[in-house]
Amino acid sequence: MSLKAFQDYYPDHVSHCYGCGRLNEHGLRIKSYWEGDETVCRFEPKPYHIAVPGSVYGGLIASLIDCHGTGSAAAYAYRTEGREMDSEPSLRFVTASLRVDYLRPTPLGVVLELRAQAKEIKDRKVVVGIRVIAEGEVCCQGEVVAVRLREV
Amino acid sequence: MSLKAFQDYYPDHVSHCYGCGRLNEHGLRIKSYWEGDETVCRFEPKPYHIAVPGSVYGGLIASLIDCHGTGSAAAYAYRTEGREMDSEPSLRFVTASLRVDYLRPTPLGVVLELRAQAKEIKDRKVVVGIRVIAEGEVCCQGEVVAVRLREV
Repeated sequence: MSLKAFQDYYPDHVSHCYGCGRLNEHGLRIKSYWEGDETVCRFEPKPYHIAVPGSVYGGLIASLIDCHGTGSAAAYAYRTEGREMDSEPSLRFVTASLRVDYLRPTPLGVVLELRAQAKEIKDRKVVVGIRVIAEGEVCCQGEVVAVRLREV
Repeated sequence: MSLKAFQDYYPDHVSHCYGCGRLNEHGLRIKSYWEGDETVCRFEPKPYHIAVPGSVYGGLIASLIDCHGTGSAAAYAYRTEGREMDSEPSLRFVTASLRVDYLRPTPLGVVLELRAQAKEIKDRKVVVGIRVIAEGEVCCQGEVVAVRLREV
């Protein structure tokens, strides 16, 4: 695991995202890393990130999937180009569409693990499939269609 | 427009949701209402609910769609049963799947309007289609498959 997360390579002016911007002091500040050929993000929801009692709020899960998806899209795009994430030009992806299937309640009070793989890498589009795992069980499955910003 | 929002009828023990629970002091506390045959939620994101500069964070939009979707599902279910929302038994829906298409950047700094209609009402399942409108333009389209909790 690299010490620097994908999001730590985003240029300052696109680092205020509520989900993943390191410069947004109100935000979730998620961090994504390579682990082999998958990307991983670990996040422990706050007690107030609740849905019904005992379960994590679905909108938070969608947010984690969204930002881990766009971060992973950038990482896969750099890797496809054979470049490090600190090389120019910077690649920054935004979400064109998001899908989340809530397979079972996601328990509150534990660290969630999001594991992602690119399903398609084509021109400016990367499709990322994501599993949300709690206590060894897949609770949600998500898909992000991410599109690269033309200018960063 | 009724003075009481759909979410104001949720029983206390299922009113802590981060998105729509009136008892979650850290949450978004969205409110949904009937307007004719559609349901409407208006919400002004905070400045820190940012994605890239000038745009609303996609995870927040997913959260609004999620909770306006489940709230609308409940409202349609009561209406289908010919009951008021303060009648027993209480109906409370959770999200089985969520889809959001981000059609264009959603501008930050204005009130967003979410307008929803039920696309399918069947047993415990209600499918809700939702448009997110800013300054008269549809910026996102969403769909929530909501399932009624067996016990509330």
